[in-house]
Amino acid sequence: MTENTDGYEQNRTKFIQNAQVNGEKQDIYIDECGTIRSVGTDISKEFRGQAECIIDASGMVAIPGLVNTHTHAAMSLLRGYADDMHLQEWLSEKIWPLEAHLTGEDVYWGTKLACLEMIRSGTTAFNDMYFFMKDAARAVDESGIRATFCHGFIDFDNPVKRETEIAATKDLVRHIKSAGNPRLQAAVGPHAPYTVSREGLEWCAEFSEHEEIMLHIHLSETEGEVSGCIEKHNMRPAAFLDSCGCLSERTLAAHCCWLDAEECSLLGRRRVSVSHNPSSNMKLAVNRALPYQALKDAGVNITLGTDGCSSNNNLDMFEEMKFAALLQKFYWNSDTLLPADEALAMATANGATALGIPTGVIQEGHPADIVLIDMATPSMVPMHNSVSNIVYSCSGGAVDTVICDGSILMSDKFIPGEKDILEKAQETSFRLVERANAPQ
Amino acid sequence: MTENTDGYEQNRTKFIQNAQVNGEKQDIYIDECGTIRSVGTDISKEFRGQAECIIDASGMVAIPGLVNTHTHAAMSLLRGYADDMHLQEWLSEKIWPLEAHLTGEDVYWGTKLACLEMIRSGTTAFNDMYFFMKDAARAVDESGIRATFCHGFIDFDNPVKRETEIAATKDLVRHIKSAGNPRLQAAVGPHAPYTVSREGLEWCAEFSEHEEIMLHIHLSETEGEVSGCIEKHNMRPAAFLDSCGCLSERTLAAHCCWLDAEECSLLGRRRVSVSHNPSSNMKLAVNRALPYQALKDAGVNITLGTDGCSSNNNLDMFEEMKFAALLQKFYWNSDTLLPADEALAMATANGATALGIPTGVIQEGHPADIVLIDMATPSMVPMHNSVSNIVYSCSGGAVDTVICDGSILMSDKFIPGEKDILEKAQETSFRLVERANAPQ
Repeated sequence: MTENTDGYEQNRTKFIQNAQVNGEKQDIYIDECGTIRSVGTDISKEFRGQAECIIDASGMVAIPGLVNTHTHAAMSLLRGYADDMHLQEWLSEKIWPLEAHLTGEDVYWGTKLACLEMIRSGTTAFNDMYFFMKDAARAVDESGIRATFCHGFIDFDNPVKRETEIAATKDLVRHIKSAGNPRLQAAVGPHAPYTVSREGLEWCAEFSEHEEIMLHIHLSETEGEVSGCIEKHNMRPAAFLDSCGCLSERTLAAHCCWLDAEECSLLGRRRVSVSHNPSSNMKLAVNRALPYQALKDAGVNITLGTDGCSSNNNLDMFEEMKFAALLQKFYWNSDTLLPADEALAMATANGATALGIPTGVIQEGHPADIVLIDMATPSMVPMHNSVSNIVYSCSGGAVDTVICDGSILMSDKFIPGEKDILEKAQETSFRLVERANAPQ
Repeated sequence: MTENTDGYEQNRTKFIQNAQVNGEKQDIYIDECGTIRSVGTDISKEFRGQAECIIDASGMVAIPGLVNTHTHAAMSLLRGYADDMHLQEWLSEKIWPLEAHLTGEDVYWGTKLACLEMIRSGTTAFNDMYFFMKDAARAVDESGIRATFCHGFIDFDNPVKRETEIAATKDLVRHIKSAGNPRLQAAVGPHAPYTVSREGLEWCAEFSEHEEIMLHIHLSETEGEVSGCIEKHNMRPAAFLDSCGCLSERTLAAHCCWLDAEECSLLGRRRVSVSHNPSSNMKLAVNRALPYQALKDAGVNITLGTDGCSSNNNLDMFEEMKFAALLQKFYWNSDTLLPADEALAMATANGATALGIPTGVIQEGHPADIVLIDMATPSMVPMHNSVSNIVYSCSGGAVDTVICDGSILMSDKFIPGEKDILEKAQETSFRLVERANAPQ
């Protein structure tokens, strides 16, 4: 029993009745292991009687739990701390000085806050890169959702720093694997081609292969990264990563705004997944949008992520789906690019594929990661097309119920323990700012 | 007493205590006329005792009711009916055939739905252009919020059609003025330079001046409108409108994506207000963003609007503030353009100025159009900067209480009569689609 779910009956069979699934009124039966045993229009006779818990989903649309493939969850503590500044000033005067004072306890409460926000807006799995990740894992374990954790590996071509990062990465992976919690996964996280040496990247690639874990990296967010890489390595960033062995079906590359056609094709051949982060890219004015059509044509698995709260500033994947669908249409000047069904797939099935988890669909045999959206919300009326309403009209505020791995985490918009987490996160954040601004 | 507010005590003095106003904990006293009598940190002794109704706003941020300066409210009925299509196909195959079957009753229920959505997301005034506007006015009157109505005047250079439009406009203005409801205003609404003849535009300009009412028009949404205008009139659209007398301090021009520098300067000299509609512009791929800095430099009053629900697809002004602040940064490649405080001003004070209504500020002597936002929402925590959280992080779902003209329209997220309106709007919309698709 996890802290956040004290209020609800867990590990019990559940019967969700009258949910709208893929445009049809259906029932869903969840067994005691949290697995979807059956979905259909006429399963009531067989399963309703055996269920220990009945969830009435009349007037609700059921979708798979959303998957956020690029976050720095504990940066929720920095939400609104510094906005509308030039990128370099923002980093050097605001973000880095604050991060220098971060503790494991800060990351714990920042991640608790992030999980709360994700549950409230229908996200049941995320892919996280930050520091003090054992504390982040403790927070996610308690929250009841899923996450993949990597230590942000940065060596700046310094061999001593590299050894520290290797040790930290090994320690985290050992820690997560030994916990044996199916909701928690480890990854290796070389920060970016411009912050990690060739040796560091090669080690990360080998370690990812050896441990059979994801490799999570930032790729070509800004134009400057591309020119810097060409200057230093005489190759564009994707080619450089490939030469270090970093591109494989285990790789998740975030941002990818400045990929050229050849790089898109390379990512497709290597079966890489990418994470589109439209809000962050717009707010930080990166000046180009992810080349969606070229990546799609190359067969790349395209997913969706919010990035951290200091550059977005929230974790609402509904809002992010809309930003993605609209930014692609606007930037590439095509009113039919990235239609609603593809945006929803990015945020569900594609994300699950990238993370190597069996969620992202509501189907027999898959874990019950299910979100119920209230149709009695003005932005969901009229219901001509539920996918269109989900992507273009409603926000995370329309989510009524969230189930992850068969456990109810939010019901009727109520999350047990929410108030306490909000207060602790607020205090933690204010204390962090105080410490960072105290006279040295 | 209006239909939507049956559940709450109206026309009574109110004392809002402990709200966070402009970063400081303050109380607000509202008199029996719905006017803010006092705002301050120490007004409790003088006013709390006289108030007939106490509103506890501890843990709430108070902002002025939001002002949506460009809508086609009843198009809420078409939400999700047709997305991800080419513009011309979308209009000719989907939107126009449906609109050909619209009735006054449809517009009434569509506007009821729109008002519900606006109240829920903190909007207390909007500027509407559509058809059957007497029915729209009836819906707004009942909802308790404010609106300015114009009949969408389209003559396509046809003198007979022009006379019909003139009659419809005169009739609507007479109707709204004779109702004498201070929440309802009339305007004249020449649709756009490419749909209205010079004679039609000149009549609208004179009528606006004579009646002392706003002139609401679409301007330079697409590049094609600009080249079409140059071809037909040998002038860019703003210059053409000016030659018809259509640019004055009473004018609200929506979209304005394709204005050049000279047009921005002209709008500034004529004291025109513009409405930025970022979501709609992105979704319809208009290929340029409103020239915010040039308009600001020219002294133009810049406001914010959602456009109609078939091209957005919602009426959430919180989401629209974020789209505006992010689109400007992204398109004009400046990470400091349109900061949060300017986005909030566009959605409040600037909008009120454009509509000529005394709202948009929480100050003594102004009508009590006040929105309370719940700070105990994950996306509002931590509260380093309330304006940043309002613009970049929270959505309309964080709104707890809405007061318009001193009347409580939503309290604790509850709006009396909501369920009935949702059902009726859904039925109305489905019947409209049936009629439009029935064999002729």
